[in-house]
Amino acid sequence: MADLAHDPNARADGRHTLELGGVLPSHIGINAAGHLSLANVDLVDLAKLHGTALYVMDEAQIRCQLLAYESALASRWPDFEVAYAGKAFLCKAMCKLVAEEGGWLDVSSGGELACALAAGFDPSQIIAHGNNKTEHELGEAITAGIGRIACDSFEEIERIERLAAAAQRIQQVYLRVKPGVVADTHSHIQTGKQDSKFGFGLSDGWAAAAVEQAMNAGHIELAGLHFHIGSQIFAFDSYEKAIEALFDFIAHTWATYRWLPAEIDLGGGIGVAYQATDRPESIEQFAETICSALERQCQRLGIDAAKIKLVVEPGRSIVANAGVTLYTVGAIKRLEGIRNYLAVDGGMADNIRPALYNAHYECAVADRAAEPRSELVTVVGKHCESGDVLIIDASIQPPKVGDTLAVFATGAYNQSMASNYNKQPRPAVLWLRDGEVRQVVRRETYDDLLTCDMG
Amino acid sequence: MADLAHDPNARADGRHTLELGGVLPSHIGINAAGHLSLANVDLVDLAKLHGTALYVMDEAQIRCQLLAYESALASRWPDFEVAYAGKAFLCKAMCKLVAEEGGWLDVSSGGELACALAAGFDPSQIIAHGNNKTEHELGEAITAGIGRIACDSFEEIERIERLAAAAQRIQQVYLRVKPGVVADTHSHIQTGKQDSKFGFGLSDGWAAAAVEQAMNAGHIELAGLHFHIGSQIFAFDSYEKAIEALFDFIAHTWATYRWLPAEIDLGGGIGVAYQATDRPESIEQFAETICSALERQCQRLGIDAAKIKLVVEPGRSIVANAGVTLYTVGAIKRLEGIRNYLAVDGGMADNIRPALYNAHYECAVADRAAEPRSELVTVVGKHCESGDVLIIDASIQPPKVGDTLAVFATGAYNQSMASNYNKQPRPAVLWLRDGEVRQVVRRETYDDLLTCDMG
Repeated sequence: MADLAHDPNARADGRHTLELGGVLPSHIGINAAGHLSLANVDLVDLAKLHGTALYVMDEAQIRCQLLAYESALASRWPDFEVAYAGKAFLCKAMCKLVAEEGGWLDVSSGGELACALAAGFDPSQIIAHGNNKTEHELGEAITAGIGRIACDSFEEIERIERLAAAAQRIQQVYLRVKPGVVADTHSHIQTGKQDSKFGFGLSDGWAAAAVEQAMNAGHIELAGLHFHIGSQIFAFDSYEKAIEALFDFIAHTWATYRWLPAEIDLGGGIGVAYQATDRPESIEQFAETICSALERQCQRLGIDAAKIKLVVEPGRSIVANAGVTLYTVGAIKRLEGIRNYLAVDGGMADNIRPALYNAHYECAVADRAAEPRSELVTVVGKHCESGDVLIIDASIQPPKVGDTLAVFATGAYNQSMASNYNKQPRPAVLWLRDGEVRQVVRRETYDDLLTCDMG
Repeated sequence: MADLAHDPNARADGRHTLELGGVLPSHIGINAAGHLSLANVDLVDLAKLHGTALYVMDEAQIRCQLLAYESALASRWPDFEVAYAGKAFLCKAMCKLVAEEGGWLDVSSGGELACALAAGFDPSQIIAHGNNKTEHELGEAITAGIGRIACDSFEEIERIERLAAAAQRIQQVYLRVKPGVVADTHSHIQTGKQDSKFGFGLSDGWAAAAVEQAMNAGHIELAGLHFHIGSQIFAFDSYEKAIEALFDFIAHTWATYRWLPAEIDLGGGIGVAYQATDRPESIEQFAETICSALERQCQRLGIDAAKIKLVVEPGRSIVANAGVTLYTVGAIKRLEGIRNYLAVDGGMADNIRPALYNAHYECAVADRAAEPRSELVTVVGKHCESGDVLIIDASIQPPKVGDTLAVFATGAYNQSMASNYNKQPRPAVLWLRDGEVRQVVRRETYDDLLTCDMG
């Protein structure tokens, strides 16, 4: 089997390879049948056996990505945690994997917390996020003994104090602050700007007021500061700027309140490659940038770096490239002078990102993955909407009706954002590893769609 | 109670009214407590009782809208059916309502068909749509005895023939054709263009070839033609153009194959008002436009109009304005010189339309609905994403944390497109009528979110 990700130019049996570099899962290849395989599992056979649309994931790669963050930080910072951001993709198996690899977990809702608890994840290693956690969600988190809550508003500090008092607990919290940095990414996922729904501004006095409020709350221990400047970031200079702004603020909290953060949580991780032309920075480079910036800032203020626990919260970069969605080609319409429409048995319900963010994906015909990409097609879904386009002008192997189409880099924000639009049952999620197949999420049935229907 | 929809300028007790005209449900008002009410149910009390986010719908208005189509057509066309487009909003109660009001049903997937069958809907009055119905879905539809299948590709005609033969049935079908008309609406919901994944082109010979293929298929009865030029259409001249193009094609099928459609299905209905400034045409005007265009075209070709069954498939205009989403205000951030962020306990998971289509909505503070709209806020959801904005610069009554916020015109494509993003349980749907509350879809629980999780 040609292991294409490790050698993007490798050719199996002298044939064409996928040539999609970092977009692909680590353990993808083309087997003797000319079929696409993942972790030594034939993806054409898998699609026939389990039906499509189908999410498949390279389990070993997920583990590797998590470990890559851990090792990159281990060599650069004394005390750190890698908290996987569950919103990218979460199920009980994922929670267990994170625990097995020594990670913490970042949850963005009561539902994600419930999933983690159901998986037996240690609540003391969970961080709760969200700009508007409900009273109910905060109560659940505090009762469960959650490790940290990243406070997002004055109202929330009050609520946590009240609920922690009632539960006779001291709740460790972070304050989410806005460093006022505009990250180079889609405006929907820029989250650290001053004009943001998230957190407390550093420059307008809100963050200082929040520190004071939290320090005066009897059942709150202000453990640290958190910021998140955005998602899918390719240039790390925004991190350097944000860290500098954070330490300007820390200088102020020290001067005013004699308070220093014991923990600093820098939010997300690196961007990922969705297209062959994408060239994200490495996890090593990310770690180097943030650790040296933190080191410089600690030196500037005379803070002992060993006393600060560094937390990062990668999500997308842990799972995105590990995921592949398999579809069956149902109809091909070659409209002369216009375009070739290739319709698959899924679409915007299982991958809303093209319609929502104008996200671009790569794909291949799994049945003949080694053949030249000689045809240009527009991959559309089965939903009753013209906007249900997965890929415009994809260059692929000549497709036939009945072929299995593999769309790459769908491991993050695909299953987690999936809907039942057109009452389409959501696909199963299979984890593949060393030739073994494990169903971590089963396919929805029509009956599942009616579970809440009161008739 | 002031019935604001019937008299947009009415004032209850001399106070300000909502002044949102056709955006509002028919039976909305402001009660003696100054609270927003729907069908004589206090929406503030309802939110407290059932929790938020919560979808509420004006059941009588849904019935009225369906009847309005039926009566508008009854006075203008001898034989017709109003087929409700289930993709806008579907549950078993909705299927039953449609049956009670004498409507047919348009389903866009096997899941919608399963819902209809579970509700006891007469399969012979169901039309199946979709550009890529799977073999499985077609088999289910044919076995169930579905009334019509709107064929969308040559592959599909083959599949239907094969499956109908196996089931020893003659399946009535429509051919979905592309009239080549660009409707004046969002490109995602323009569906009748030549450059479309849907149907067979009229101008490129595809539709003629499909007629021939269907006529030669022994287990297919070619009952008629279907087109759909788009959704949320405000100007009906595209319908006139599309009908003219359709009849040019009918002239050709008559001349060539001696075939005339017994049924003509014109797809969707009228656009709706999402914003106070929207002025959609009336259902009467829609019926007048299409019926007189059909009449003219029948006369032109010398076809007896009485021999053609007219089918329309309104979805959005049946349910959109009947729906209101109730949220609880969780945090308010008044950022000086920037904007006021008002965070609610729902967002892009229960209403993806603002993020997906840049759709605009109106809202009001249900607790003080009669007060002047003196504050400008940006309504954001609770999801971990900056793009989770429901309304930019909404003009509302001064809000307080804990208030119930009502977002209007959310009855269509909100619940049906809802996801569990951030593992947010999907809201319940309540139908209100004459002071009575009926839960047609219950709220999801955390356990529901883990139904398919294999652990």
